[in-house]
Amino acid sequence: MTTTGTTPATDALEARFRRVAAVEGALAVLSWDRMVMMPAGGGEARAEQAATLGVIAHELLTAPEVADLLAAAEAEGVAGWRATSLSEMRRRHAHATALPSALVDAMSRASARCEAAWRVARAGSDYALVREPLAAVIALAREAAAAKSAALGVEPYAALLDQYEPGASVPRIEALFAELEAALPPILATVLERQASEGEPLLPAGPFPPPAQRALAREIMATLGFDFAHGRLDETLHPFCGGVPDDVRVTTRFSETGFVSGVMGVIHETGHALYERGLPAAWRGLPIGEARGMVMHESQSLLMEMQACRTPAFLGFLSARAKAAFGGDGAAWDPANLRRIYTRVERGFIRVEADEVTYPLHVILRTRLERALLSGDLTVADLPAAWGEGMRTLLGVIPPDDARGCLQDIHWYDGAIGYFPTYTLGALAAAQLFGAATAADPAIPEAIGRGDFTPLLAWLRPNVHARASSATTDEILQAATGAGLGTGAFLGHLKRRYLDGQA
Amino acid sequence: MTTTGTTPATDALEARFRRVAAVEGALAVLSWDRMVMMPAGGGEARAEQAATLGVIAHELLTAPEVADLLAAAEAEGVAGWRATSLSEMRRRHAHATALPSALVDAMSRASARCEAAWRVARAGSDYALVREPLAAVIALAREAAAAKSAALGVEPYAALLDQYEPGASVPRIEALFAELEAALPPILATVLERQASEGEPLLPAGPFPPPAQRALAREIMATLGFDFAHGRLDETLHPFCGGVPDDVRVTTRFSETGFVSGVMGVIHETGHALYERGLPAAWRGLPIGEARGMVMHESQSLLMEMQACRTPAFLGFLSARAKAAFGGDGAAWDPANLRRIYTRVERGFIRVEADEVTYPLHVILRTRLERALLSGDLTVADLPAAWGEGMRTLLGVIPPDDARGCLQDIHWYDGAIGYFPTYTLGALAAAQLFGAATAADPAIPEAIGRGDFTPLLAWLRPNVHARASSATTDEILQAATGAGLGTGAFLGHLKRRYLDGQA
Repeated sequence: MTTTGTTPATDALEARFRRVAAVEGALAVLSWDRMVMMPAGGGEARAEQAATLGVIAHELLTAPEVADLLAAAEAEGVAGWRATSLSEMRRRHAHATALPSALVDAMSRASARCEAAWRVARAGSDYALVREPLAAVIALAREAAAAKSAALGVEPYAALLDQYEPGASVPRIEALFAELEAALPPILATVLERQASEGEPLLPAGPFPPPAQRALAREIMATLGFDFAHGRLDETLHPFCGGVPDDVRVTTRFSETGFVSGVMGVIHETGHALYERGLPAAWRGLPIGEARGMVMHESQSLLMEMQACRTPAFLGFLSARAKAAFGGDGAAWDPANLRRIYTRVERGFIRVEADEVTYPLHVILRTRLERALLSGDLTVADLPAAWGEGMRTLLGVIPPDDARGCLQDIHWYDGAIGYFPTYTLGALAAAQLFGAATAADPAIPEAIGRGDFTPLLAWLRPNVHARASSATTDEILQAATGAGLGTGAFLGHLKRRYLDGQA
Repeated sequence: MTTTGTTPATDALEARFRRVAAVEGALAVLSWDRMVMMPAGGGEARAEQAATLGVIAHELLTAPEVADLLAAAEAEGVAGWRATSLSEMRRRHAHATALPSALVDAMSRASARCEAAWRVARAGSDYALVREPLAAVIALAREAAAAKSAALGVEPYAALLDQYEPGASVPRIEALFAELEAALPPILATVLERQASEGEPLLPAGPFPPPAQRALAREIMATLGFDFAHGRLDETLHPFCGGVPDDVRVTTRFSETGFVSGVMGVIHETGHALYERGLPAAWRGLPIGEARGMVMHESQSLLMEMQACRTPAFLGFLSARAKAAFGGDGAAWDPANLRRIYTRVERGFIRVEADEVTYPLHVILRTRLERALLSGDLTVADLPAAWGEGMRTLLGVIPPDDARGCLQDIHWYDGAIGYFPTYTLGALAAAQLFGAATAADPAIPEAIGRGDFTPLLAWLRPNVHARASSATTDEILQAATGAGLGTGAFLGHLKRRYLDGQA
């Protein structure tokens, strides 16, 4: 893959980044283990291991010789993918060197302290407990944003966004979110009115023994194209997708009361897993070979969860498989009823439980508030009130307590500011990509109805997965769908599914 | 713990070794994951991660500043445990720096290649397949032994032994093994004669559902003192104990045909786990805080498996628990019959299936042959014949094929030469320590019969576990039992159990 000899600096740089990637891969497995396998008493030792590997990866990336190698490599004038690879290495290096290590250390400690306080605060809905640690996290985030802003030449909030979505533009996000904020409320009102007239969907009755749920989950994962020779399914309280591209690890939670949300959660995480697994092996260990960013990542989970697997066609397939798994029978198990369950919309308090119509409103609220916290326009003390006011304006409901309000998500308390927008940008991209896929291959929906995801995956592999970080999100979308990121496909999808009763 | 300020070099050295330990701890968890959790397709990525972390740990240990720090620390004249700690750091450094990295790299590649060939060779009992790769491994081991011999000032085989059992003396091992070789055959002959006259023990009949085996295994582990807040039990083809002291991970294999060997395997690994867990927290991350060596490690597993848990008292307890776990009933489940199963002796081919009477003979054979391979007195081509001849002389049987002969153990093919003697030295130490424990607290055997291991553990913790690497194996044994390592306690134990029908 590398042209050894003629480009010694580029070669050495690639070797260095592969070494960093191996350390980060080890960290990913250790992090999975911490959440899935580790006994409680192992926490302190694990924290020490992870912190040490984190420092080592950071040192490998920021060592003075890397800056020299970057300059020398740029002078070597490599072309094609290696030129893109070089600029992705430069990007990673810029992020890593932007922050003094004292600040990195302070942020890591402040986040750990704040996250621990948050767990207690959320459990007791007691915001006062996080006020001071959150203020410390925000103050450090402001410092980090300023440092990264200077290094990257973008505004501070954009510099934080850039960590999760390279090249994200604040005015662009503002424009997209303004479109959604205008378009969603009338859709929401219409859907809620119709739902009210129809009454509640039926809930399939159990029992739902965990082994049968596990077997169904594995069957559906395999149906979507998950390769168990390169991955696992396990159980955790909070489902996630972790590991490395050759060993992708999905987790789920099985509920005693049903399979409905568990199966859809597995489908969501499998979408993430298929993206990781589809990253090109030839670029393994290089920044160019990594997932493009959290927007593209979320687009892949939502494409499966929201676009492909809530269609009447797939729900027909799922209905049959679920009936077989649990011996289910009766109207509650019918595809039409499953569809009513899976397209239920409500003005809820909780983002992670939100439907696809209201979800963007939850994200718009958080984006607005985190920008205000970062700029100083909003103080930590005023956050609960601003949250309530935002919920009232955007969703028409006010959370009864902070646990169902500004304490519900871990992100800020863990130091992650600039992450929230990627959920909704990912939903936009998902609609756009699924639309393009089905336009390119009209056989896809019917195949999905038979549980055959091969045609869909055959389109996603070259058009999304294999592109990895070889182009920007917008470039990938442009090439795959004929347009950069927009709201049209998403709003069109909502109208078809929720107003016209199709798709 | 550290007296910062007055001993800057010692402080810096300790920080450096703690960093190495964190990387090695990460490696231990990754290695557990590879054997217990990893899907087959993850192997290549994992090998890359492990190799990278291995190189990083080695670089941290062998960086030029470490030699400077060691010299400076020695000049600081720390006293007490820190002085011992310093010499243990010096020992680790001497081992790490003894080998040029090209040799380390060559050994790692040769072992990986040979181990892969061995898996195929053993499966088909085809020694020809490993002849050339094993010769390469032996040649490199000879080089490594020479280099370590020069660095440590001991003979080449002792230099390899020293990796597993610090300070091991070849003449001492020869003397101990000569005593065993003389004493065991008559014991063996007598036991076999008696067994023949008694007929076969009964085998408890199943079913033995894996969940019940798992529950029994966990119950017995908890009985022995295993803390599941700091450890796990999982299933693998080849049981082992891994992880780190605060997160010790035991594995076992559940057989469809019974619980007998599975339970005893769990007890063995739990003995290892209790040692790791009992290492002093205050010395975590420093060489002085690690297990003393493989002799002491094996003594702790065998103390549980062979000394404590094959006593009539414990087998009474186990009989009751196993009956309850599987709904067992009848003479096969009686303590007396379990005792006959668990003290069955035979002239077998396979080391890992050997009883405690014949086990040392398997080890003596391997020790003799690996020394001859290392010195060049035995060629790789002549190994199968020498093995057969050795088995005939020592055990009176000749394996029908190489799979049940020189291909049965992974050690040599994986590059581990000098490891085998520790199994038998550990058995000697186990007998000595258990004798001293019961002499110090005569209530121990009766407590074990009630499933109460607290008194035994209360003796092992200060006398063995907490001493970690603060003294040599012989010093620890001397302090705990009044004598250095010898064969007396072990042979006395065999005579009591196998000739006198006691213990």
